[in-house]
Amino acid sequence: MSRISCPVLARRTASAAEAAALVRPGDSVGISGFTGAGFPKAVPVALADRMQAARARGEDFQIGLWSGASTGPAVDGALAGVHGLSKRLPYNSDPDLRRLINAGEVDYVDAHLSHAAQQAWFGFYGDLDVAIIEVAAVLPNGLLVPGTSLGNNKTWLERAHKVVLEVNSWLPRDLEGFHDVYYGAAVPPHRIPIQLTHPMQRIGDPYLRVDPSKVVAVVETHAPDRNSPLDEPDDNSRAMAALLVDFLRHEVAAGRMPPGLLPLQSGVGSTPNAVMEGLLTAEFEGLTSFTEVIQDGLLDLLDAGKLTSVSATSFGLSPAGQQRFLDNVGSYKGRVLLRSQDISNHPELVRRLGVIAINGMIEADIYGNVNSSHVMGSAIMNGVGGSGDFARNAYLNFFVSDSLAKGGAISSIVPMVSHVDHTEHDVHVLITEQGLADLRGLSPTDRADRVIAHCAHPDYRDRLRDYVDRARAARPEARHTPHLLDEALGWHAAYLREGRM
Amino acid sequence: MSRISCPVLARRTASAAEAAALVRPGDSVGISGFTGAGFPKAVPVALADRMQAARARGEDFQIGLWSGASTGPAVDGALAGVHGLSKRLPYNSDPDLRRLINAGEVDYVDAHLSHAAQQAWFGFYGDLDVAIIEVAAVLPNGLLVPGTSLGNNKTWLERAHKVVLEVNSWLPRDLEGFHDVYYGAAVPPHRIPIQLTHPMQRIGDPYLRVDPSKVVAVVETHAPDRNSPLDEPDDNSRAMAALLVDFLRHEVAAGRMPPGLLPLQSGVGSTPNAVMEGLLTAEFEGLTSFTEVIQDGLLDLLDAGKLTSVSATSFGLSPAGQQRFLDNVGSYKGRVLLRSQDISNHPELVRRLGVIAINGMIEADIYGNVNSSHVMGSAIMNGVGGSGDFARNAYLNFFVSDSLAKGGAISSIVPMVSHVDHTEHDVHVLITEQGLADLRGLSPTDRADRVIAHCAHPDYRDRLRDYVDRARAARPEARHTPHLLDEALGWHAAYLREGRM
Repeated sequence: MSRISCPVLARRTASAAEAAALVRPGDSVGISGFTGAGFPKAVPVALADRMQAARARGEDFQIGLWSGASTGPAVDGALAGVHGLSKRLPYNSDPDLRRLINAGEVDYVDAHLSHAAQQAWFGFYGDLDVAIIEVAAVLPNGLLVPGTSLGNNKTWLERAHKVVLEVNSWLPRDLEGFHDVYYGAAVPPHRIPIQLTHPMQRIGDPYLRVDPSKVVAVVETHAPDRNSPLDEPDDNSRAMAALLVDFLRHEVAAGRMPPGLLPLQSGVGSTPNAVMEGLLTAEFEGLTSFTEVIQDGLLDLLDAGKLTSVSATSFGLSPAGQQRFLDNVGSYKGRVLLRSQDISNHPELVRRLGVIAINGMIEADIYGNVNSSHVMGSAIMNGVGGSGDFARNAYLNFFVSDSLAKGGAISSIVPMVSHVDHTEHDVHVLITEQGLADLRGLSPTDRADRVIAHCAHPDYRDRLRDYVDRARAARPEARHTPHLLDEALGWHAAYLREGRM
Repeated sequence: MSRISCPVLARRTASAAEAAALVRPGDSVGISGFTGAGFPKAVPVALADRMQAARARGEDFQIGLWSGASTGPAVDGALAGVHGLSKRLPYNSDPDLRRLINAGEVDYVDAHLSHAAQQAWFGFYGDLDVAIIEVAAVLPNGLLVPGTSLGNNKTWLERAHKVVLEVNSWLPRDLEGFHDVYYGAAVPPHRIPIQLTHPMQRIGDPYLRVDPSKVVAVVETHAPDRNSPLDEPDDNSRAMAALLVDFLRHEVAAGRMPPGLLPLQSGVGSTPNAVMEGLLTAEFEGLTSFTEVIQDGLLDLLDAGKLTSVSATSFGLSPAGQQRFLDNVGSYKGRVLLRSQDISNHPELVRRLGVIAINGMIEADIYGNVNSSHVMGSAIMNGVGGSGDFARNAYLNFFVSDSLAKGGAISSIVPMVSHVDHTEHDVHVLITEQGLADLRGLSPTDRADRVIAHCAHPDYRDRLRDYVDRARAARPEARHTPHLLDEALGWHAAYLREGRM
């Protein structure tokens, strides 16, 4: 039975190739998709075919691509494969596209995920020509049942001149009711307070709206989301999870946090996920979550009854986790709510709710600056994502990483990070498998002592200590944040030169 | 006639020396004061005398000092002079104290100004032993008429175990009615939306409250605020102001901003102030301001009727500006509103209102990272202040600086900043006297092109271009943010070694 129950929109049914033909070279295209969930499965592939053909004819065919966050091989991979992207924002994790970005072929605008929608509304990115949005169903009245992510879908549907819908029958029809699409947003000076005071409060509609006159094609698909096998937590991840859970226990005991904690945000990755696993066996009850992405660990906590509910913008599940969700979709209704990413990550809400933010990092320096996005200063890994939205406004933030990478050739604790995504003013707690450094309320010098003593790997500890000592001695009149500028990035430079720091 | 009309509190009248005797070595002391306005004039000086005497006896006497922002010589200067501070937060601009911080003698916690109050409430800084708060009057019912700044006064009054009030009869008694102290704040999970939708909306009370049982001393003073002569705008400042005003004009014409603009925030300094002067002769009418500090330029705009009103947390006036305000205090009532700094700088409100943020900087790099706080990576200048609160959440932000410093020995546009306060994800527009670089929606490579072409001084432009070209060539697989890590901070290192970049 068709998922397209609206007579007006049913008449726009088209093939993926027909829909792709409506995209012109040079267009800016907004797509659905966040962490591999809810991206359009068919039209971008058909568009890549068109681009391939155009290239074979010696024609140029590139577009700018705007998403929620990361998509899947059928979007970024396919379009990268035919060199079809000139610009990409605000986030990507596709390895093929990453190579093109790092080759300087694609302009990548790596932005805070809560900023993308409003910057589009402000006109900072120019016009949006086409939106390609995956949905679970089109209701008789033309309202859209969203899919497994909301991301920037509302904004793209409203801003685009033309809209292509992909109706994916693989998505459970039961997704109806899982969404809360806030329609109270506006552009200054017309903004009003967002009246949300609890992670699960509904402030919007369960449906996306679309102006039917803009819908140029409705394409039926049946294809799964991308899902990524999740690494089984290793000893290091478990060690970091234990440190973090113990710290939360300590904060509760000190009266700095309620016994049921505060709403949890957990970044994508196996260590943040391991922390959720760590909470499974901890004593905390009645947990809540106000986060970006629902990984397996949150599902486990829900299933165990430790977590009462979770608000997010998307799923990021393993194959097993995805199957578990699909098999029991009804049981999660009312306990899982998906929001637009400008709401899930909104500074106003993150600060009001007092979120506990747990995010991975590439490296941190001894003074507490954190690099989330760049390898050795120049090559993008994925991007800042939502980490800045949450960390800056959190009640308490954690950044976690193994203390070593590349078999010990890289220390993730360095004299100076090679790129700053989170400044020394913003970082509360660093955790590696070596230990935890609580940096709250400390001066840079005190931070350095703690980070070196607690987080650095013993193989690098003495050299870091030596760096600080020499930096202090070198400029007695500049000891607020002692640095040796000739050496500050020397560890990274040595790695590039010699393959080890 | 006494300003202390409350019989209960009148009985606590004491001398500054008596009040200072209530502060113990090792105490954490919260004081009023922001940009040299509203700091206590007498008790810290008396405390410094006590410390001096203690030192003469061979005893140690240091305290931790928490303020709103910068104070005056009678606080930071006096206490630094006797080495009386072990810790200082969240902001300082006193030259003597700066020297001690940079000598490594004082632990300085340089924090976002909207974060300080909540981090105190969260317990991140430990207990607050004493608050020393300047007010304009004590009403018969015990309510306090605040002075020329609100800063963190509400929080210090509520958090401190003991309270010392300084009632300064130099302050105009007419300050009554200029304040809006928000009493709806809470700690998560009890926070609610802040119901403010216009810069001048009142959401609080005109008075500060204090628990009379905590008031251990009330000291009468008669002493002026610090005021700093403001540099007459030079040609560079005027050039930058003209560029900025012209850009706003351009944004209005493009439909990206209403004709009356959006609420203005202007950082402390002569260039931001010159921008306000530039607006005096521009065509914009009905301007509003949601800012931290009221400098002369805003007063000029108010007097000219261009600016309808201004919301801030403090004044930062020149001697002439101060006199003008004092002489006409009644005429500003209803057009000037002072708020607590966690409200004046609140991310929720800055984002909702869509503030236009204009702040000075020390340096920017070609990729749009900005350093607001550190000289050559290690020595603190003042601190990040409120620049991060505003820039991150602004509708549009500008960072302004001369392209050269030290007679050309320093370029304020560098390959890589020596300290990051505002990341590449956060900076919209850079301005020097050379030109303006609009970085919105650009990739790092495109940003570098614009910053070098428009903002760098011609004397440094070729070397910057050469740096980027060589960085791109050196690592063809790492061209997202091309850097040469051996050279990235080499300009700063050269300056330290040779006195020029």
